[in-house]
Amino acid sequence: MVIDDPAVKAEVEAAFAVYEKALVTNDVPVLEALFHDDPRTIRYGAGENLYGMDAIRAFRRGRSPQGLARDLQQTVITTYGRDFAVAMTLFTRAGAPGKVGRQSQTWVRFPEGWRVVAAHVSIIAV
Amino acid sequence: MVIDDPAVKAEVEAAFAVYEKALVTNDVPVLEALFHDDPRTIRYGAGENLYGMDAIRAFRRGRSPQGLARDLQQTVITTYGRDFAVAMTLFTRAGAPGKVGRQSQTWVRFPEGWRVVAAHVSIIAV
Repeated sequence: MVIDDPAVKAEVEAAFAVYEKALVTNDVPVLEALFHDDPRTIRYGAGENLYGMDAIRAFRRGRSPQGLARDLQQTVITTYGRDFAVAMTLFTRAGAPGKVGRQSQTWVRFPEGWRVVAAHVSIIAV
Repeated sequence: MVIDDPAVKAEVEAAFAVYEKALVTNDVPVLEALFHDDPRTIRYGAGENLYGMDAIRAFRRGRSPQGLARDLQQTVITTYGRDFAVAMTLFTRAGAPGKVGRQSQTWVRFPEGWRVVAAHVSIIAV
């Protein structure tokens, strides 16, 4: 299994960038499209535990679009073979001094493209 | 790509069980052995961000062995193909009422066996 094949990594980096832009602009259709539409998809958010795409969708659609801008730090995307990847990043927000966010995502390549199958976001004090 | 092939799933469930037992007994050699020994392995802990196996090792070896017992809830292990899996679980500790932990792990099959390549643990109020 090749780790960090450049072509595969470039694909996941591109998907990650699309996700990030959609997140900070609260582009809900894009955010939803990038998660695998399946009851087994799970997202632990900053304050909620979402099991299945229905729960994830309901959360996205009810979320305030305010204060989503953020800066990323120490982003590491690692690919395993051609179809699997992990994206880990820290983030900070101007409105939350003294706090650092952590976002981890597991991406899988499906026939329809790269999709997040598991995500976890949390905030801790610096 | 087969999702949740029973044989693959059984393998990951077994590895997850070994990890859980090692965690609550603070069996550091087993905990270390189950993480992929690589600078790209990342673990976001309850209060620390560990990039690379050296950082993860240093944290494990310096950790207090007290108060690690926990109960798992809503554990979901999902396998993608033969070599990739995600394990998501909530947990509670008797010493931390009103709090719920979330643990996510991405597992990859290497020649030496299943290993965690990315993990994220966080605690939130219920």
